[in-house]
Amino acid sequence: MKLTDPDRLFPAEPRIRFLARALYEPIAELPIISPHGHCDASWFAKNTRFPDPAQLFVVPDHYVFRMLVSQGVSMDDLGIPRADGSVPDTDPRDIWRRFAEHYHLFRATPSAMWLDHSFEHVFGVNERLNADTADAIYDHIDAKLAQDAYLPRALYDRFNVEVLATTEGPMDDMSCHREIAASGWTGRVITTYRPDAVVDPEYEGFRDNLAAFGKVTGEDTTTWAGYLKAHRIRRAYFKKYGATATDHGHPTARTEDLDKADAAALYAKVRSGACTTAEAEVFRAQMLTEMAKMSLDDGLVLQIHAGSRRNHSAKVFASHGRDKGFDIPSPTSYVSALKPMLDAVGMEPDLTIILFTLDETSYSRELAPLAGVYPALRLGPPWWFFDSHEGIKRFREATTETCGFYNTVGFNDDTRAFCSIPARHDVARRSDCAYLANLVATGRLGLAEAHEVAYDLTYRLAKQAYRL
Amino acid sequence: MKLTDPDRLFPAEPRIRFLARALYEPIAELPIISPHGHCDASWFAKNTRFPDPAQLFVVPDHYVFRMLVSQGVSMDDLGIPRADGSVPDTDPRDIWRRFAEHYHLFRATPSAMWLDHSFEHVFGVNERLNADTADAIYDHIDAKLAQDAYLPRALYDRFNVEVLATTEGPMDDMSCHREIAASGWTGRVITTYRPDAVVDPEYEGFRDNLAAFGKVTGEDTTTWAGYLKAHRIRRAYFKKYGATATDHGHPTARTEDLDKADAAALYAKVRSGACTTAEAEVFRAQMLTEMAKMSLDDGLVLQIHAGSRRNHSAKVFASHGRDKGFDIPSPTSYVSALKPMLDAVGMEPDLTIILFTLDETSYSRELAPLAGVYPALRLGPPWWFFDSHEGIKRFREATTETCGFYNTVGFNDDTRAFCSIPARHDVARRSDCAYLANLVATGRLGLAEAHEVAYDLTYRLAKQAYRL
Amino acid sequence: MKLTDPDRLFPAEPRIRFLARALYEPIAELPIISPHGHCDASWFAKNTRFPDPAQLFVVPDHYVFRMLVSQGVSMDDLGIPRADGSVPDTDPRDIWRRFAEHYHLFRATPSAMWLDHSFEHVFGVNERLNADTADAIYDHIDAKLAQDAYLPRALYDRFNVEVLATTEGPMDDMSCHREIAASGWTGRVITTYRPDAVVDPEYEGFRDNLAAFGKVTGEDTTTWAGYLKAHRIRRAYFKKYGATATDHGHPTARTEDLDKADAAALYAKVRSGACTTAEAEVFRAQMLTEMAKMSLDDGLVLQIHAGSRRNHSAKVFASHGRDKGFDIPSPTSYVSALKPMLDAVGMEPDLTIILFTLDETSYSRELAPLAGVYPALRLGPPWWFFDSHEGIKRFREATTETCGFYNTVGFNDDTRAFCSIPARHDVARRSDCAYLANLVATGRLGLAEAHEVAYDLTYRLAKQAYRL
Repeated sequence: MKLTDPDRLFPAEPRIRFLARALYEPIAELPIISPHGHCDASWFAKNTRFPDPAQLFVVPDHYVFRMLVSQGVSMDDLGIPRADGSVPDTDPRDIWRRFAEHYHLFRATPSAMWLDHSFEHVFGVNERLNADTADAIYDHIDAKLAQDAYLPRALYDRFNVEVLATTEGPMDDMSCHREIAASGWTGRVITTYRPDAVVDPEYEGFRDNLAAFGKVTGEDTTTWAGYLKAHRIRRAYFKKYGATATDHGHPTARTEDLDKADAAALYAKVRSGACTTAEAEVFRAQMLTEMAKMSLDDGLVLQIHAGSRRNHSAKVFASHGRDKGFDIPSPTSYVSALKPMLDAVGMEPDLTIILFTLDETSYSRELAPLAGVYPALRLGPPWWFFDSHEGIKRFREATTETCGFYNTVGFNDDTRAFCSIPARHDVARRSDCAYLANLVATGRLGLAEAHEVAYDLTYRLAKQAYRL
Repeated sequence: MKLTDPDRLFPAEPRIRFLARALYEPIAELPIISPHGHCDASWFAKNTRFPDPAQLFVVPDHYVFRMLVSQGVSMDDLGIPRADGSVPDTDPRDIWRRFAEHYHLFRATPSAMWLDHSFEHVFGVNERLNADTADAIYDHIDAKLAQDAYLPRALYDRFNVEVLATTEGPMDDMSCHREIAASGWTGRVITTYRPDAVVDPEYEGFRDNLAAFGKVTGEDTTTWAGYLKAHRIRRAYFKKYGATATDHGHPTARTEDLDKADAAALYAKVRSGACTTAEAEVFRAQMLTEMAKMSLDDGLVLQIHAGSRRNHSAKVFASHGRDKGFDIPSPTSYVSALKPMLDAVGMEPDLTIILFTLDETSYSRELAPLAGVYPALRLGPPWWFFDSHEGIKRFREATTETCGFYNTVGFNDDTRAFCSIPARHDVARRSDCAYLANLVATGRLGLAEAHEVAYDLTYRLAKQAYRL
Repeated sequence: MKLTDPDRLFPAEPRIRFLARALYEPIAELPIISPHGHCDASWFAKNTRFPDPAQLFVVPDHYVFRMLVSQGVSMDDLGIPRADGSVPDTDPRDIWRRFAEHYHLFRATPSAMWLDHSFEHVFGVNERLNADTADAIYDHIDAKLAQDAYLPRALYDRFNVEVLATTEGPMDDMSCHREIAASGWTGRVITTYRPDAVVDPEYEGFRDNLAAFGKVTGEDTTTWAGYLKAHRIRRAYFKKYGATATDHGHPTARTEDLDKADAAALYAKVRSGACTTAEAEVFRAQMLTEMAKMSLDDGLVLQIHAGSRRNHSAKVFASHGRDKGFDIPSPTSYVSALKPMLDAVGMEPDLTIILFTLDETSYSRELAPLAGVYPALRLGPPWWFFDSHEGIKRFREATTETCGFYNTVGFNDDTRAFCSIPARHDVARRSDCAYLANLVATGRLGLAEAHEVAYDLTYRLAKQAYRL
């Protein structure tokens, strides 16, 4: 049986479906531009096989295991590593069976669509996953993973990826990226500068991180000037490994533009470890503006991923640490928050700041009106929980009328689930074509123009916005 | 003429409509599970006739009379009882005529759909209500109400209700439920523990309520320990009358988890009547966590109905008191608000906390992400103003992709309008089938799976979540 | 070629499209009621030709030029006047060419739909605007503008406008309206009282404005009593020139109902220029309630346009001043904000307060529940960024189920782009008919009723609500 419908995500009304298919066909096979995500650079550096189906599909994917947890499955039974570094001794086949037994939980979720797409199109599975088929599918996938055609670089090529950005912390030594470059392999895997560990005073080990940051750059990070210099040095270093962007994961979108003395005094305070929560917030806010000003000089695109309340469960954070599916969106506002930064650099036509949100109410109320007037602003695609058919539909419907298509930047897969990359881009392409087809069918866009827009959303805008 | 279209609420596109109808047919006649609502237990205890059409359809239904008030009809002219207990001497037929003259105001509202459904399917009316038909329809319904087949128990049976939960205050003596039990009638009418009157320091008569609460439980409610004990006793008492759940109507979703000494001190303060608005809020917040902890012991499901700004008009509250259609939603956030309770009990797989909201922005931003990871959380169905076709559609579209179907709990009618119960459940069934049909038609869900989900949403999930 | 599809905005599904067309046809040619907008009264007073295509379509329309600015076009290159009153010496044809080159930015925006409609239906253009067609279209439109049939009054008649309200500040001398009245022309151009300049302590030149306000009314505006009296006098004066409404553009919807002494003391403070931001907010809040009380006496309808964060860019405000496309919506709440005013006058059936919002989340959560119960409240149509097909769809879907159609007031074009008026009303009519057709097709509204509602939304409700 087919796990995926060839006409999936196209509207059911025959005329619109026909249009959607016509728009999709020419762009379906365009190369994948993946300018932001969390793939592990070591996959491409080492090019060794993925260990087993559970390690590939369940354990690292918090979209997947959070749903199982929500229905009472324990993290230990899913083999999720603990905060102390220990790993439950859970048989991967048992993890897979548990996943298969609960696969109905994913009905109508994007996870199900991505998984089915990967099962069928990457691994050639032709049965629905459930308790009965679990073992056979496990064996089938496991056997494939042993083949050369399923090594990371081979999959990268087969997925038709043109460029893939990973995300590294500020002290990363770029050894994997160096190894990739030295290997002679033609894949283009670039890094992204994500300095949260030395920008967020509430990050685990912030003070130690600052010291390490000084060491790695040879700058005196005990002074504000030295700290800023260290960032400049590190940004240049990341650019050597292909970086065209920086990325910032902040709890809010707040920015500040303090004068130099105040900023230096604040840095002294946060560096001492004695700052309040409010001061930590102001420091992060100031650093967004600093980063934007550095971008004016070095051309790196600035990405702001704001609004996740990380590690919501104190219990789970204590037992299992970060990134365990307990990051929850919260109301996030942009209009006042971004004003200091925009007053400083928002009118610069050569700067690109890409905004992401987990608060969909900001699409039509704040983000589209802002991106529809400030030359420096662009809207990132729907992020995280909203990286889905309905999420993309709501994004387009809420933003296009105010800021058009050309203040958006194409799609990001933003994933650490490598095999889901083609599926995610395909969902975005189909969802955009469904949206465009509806515009054509209701007289809001010409067909020739819709073809151009489909190409732009799939390919051109991502390359242009991220300077790839 | 038919007042209701047999294909109502199914999408117009022929293929999706065909699918929706196919999904609906097998579940259309399933028994009604009504795990939360405001029917009057005395109807089933006394089983006497409903007085007249105006008393049945207009006077007690604030959905209905608020719309007439919004266009300048006075409450007196609608026979609405006043705060002082007096009842305007308004002829029921005059009330009905006023209602009929203004019936166009309800065009495209769920009230119109429920009313037309009741008129046609419960009473056999076959004309649209308006000024011309008012008297004939009044007479027609009034004559039916005199028949045995229109007594409350007969309607309960005819509506195919399997279980119906009422909601009682903490001092209720359960005489009606006792009477029902003693009657030998086979209907299952259970109670729900709703202790707002002794939990909310801002409730009318709070201090007297605490005294009465002590009396009815035999506990010393002047102490924190005695007060908590009284709740435990009362919960056990309600369980004898079938309760499987508690319910809490709070202005916000805030929770706290104070240590025992602080909680006791706060209780002393609120009991004295000297607490501030902020302290009242903290006390309600603390009590949600206390209730959740009691639920861990006695298995009652915890329902939180948060976010109604009650009695918005000072004038109407003075003249007519509570529940007069002047309860207005307000922005409600859950992520920080629920954290103390979730840190305490959120990971307990044997606890069920059902969340309701009047702020639809929280669906995709907060509620679905929370329910999609915490084992103790489930999402209640769209509530109050959102218990409608568009409301249900938005709920499913905003939540399913993140928390799936299986972190939701089926439908609640939540009504005091008895004759609207079949209509409301029918709207929910049709709206869910419309949503599912669209998923099938766009390749997001298999048809066999959609049939299972339709059954689950209609019947199984409500029984399971409410432990019925 | 046709620039506009005769079936535009009607749903693609054939049966719904058929219904939408059937609903639209009888109301397509109804006269335009334009009860709120920003046309320049001098156009109709002087009746001289519009200078050129760039001055007609680009320079005064911040919807249009903000999009060009967002992609790096400079304001100078678009001929936008500067704050110091100077006007860049930019050739109108160059402005037009720049606009044409960037016309693809407007794809799928309401601006494109309005512009194409104006080009085709007002000027007879039959080519899509782009770099290649720019000059020919410029010449074509420019030639038309020289004809008598394209003078303002001729266009007013041709657009089939029945009444058009302009908006004037409190010191306006009504010379244009007087000139129109004296001219014998039959067009009905009325004014609206918009006193922001003397109500908002943060308005540029507030203190001077108060002095001028005293002068123009002959009242002593140094006292609270004299200031209120001046408003009453001025309102009466505006009524002489046709005003049936006042309008208030406030950053929030906050209202207050201070006692007289407190209000007088606050006025003394704001008049002194020494008030804080918070006091300015309270003063604006108090003035909304004062205006509502005056409306009870003189019958003027009160419009509240709340929630725009004006002049967001400090840089652009300094260089170019107000109304340059940098007004951004922000989260706006109504439930607590309006309570003081509603407690004072909300139950008055003879008062009409029309609420507008730029925060769509308030539609279903706050505005529809409020308008669905308070006799004095009505909901204005989607405003500014939401005055579009999707915006209108979301408005109807979010509000109708709670407050019905009859607590809304028809459409406002709210524009200073005269030639877009027919296009905007046409978009509203089509979008409403699309919505109604969907209701009919899904059994939620009878066809005969839908015809009535279509007429009411297009014509009757606007006349009734605005007392025209």
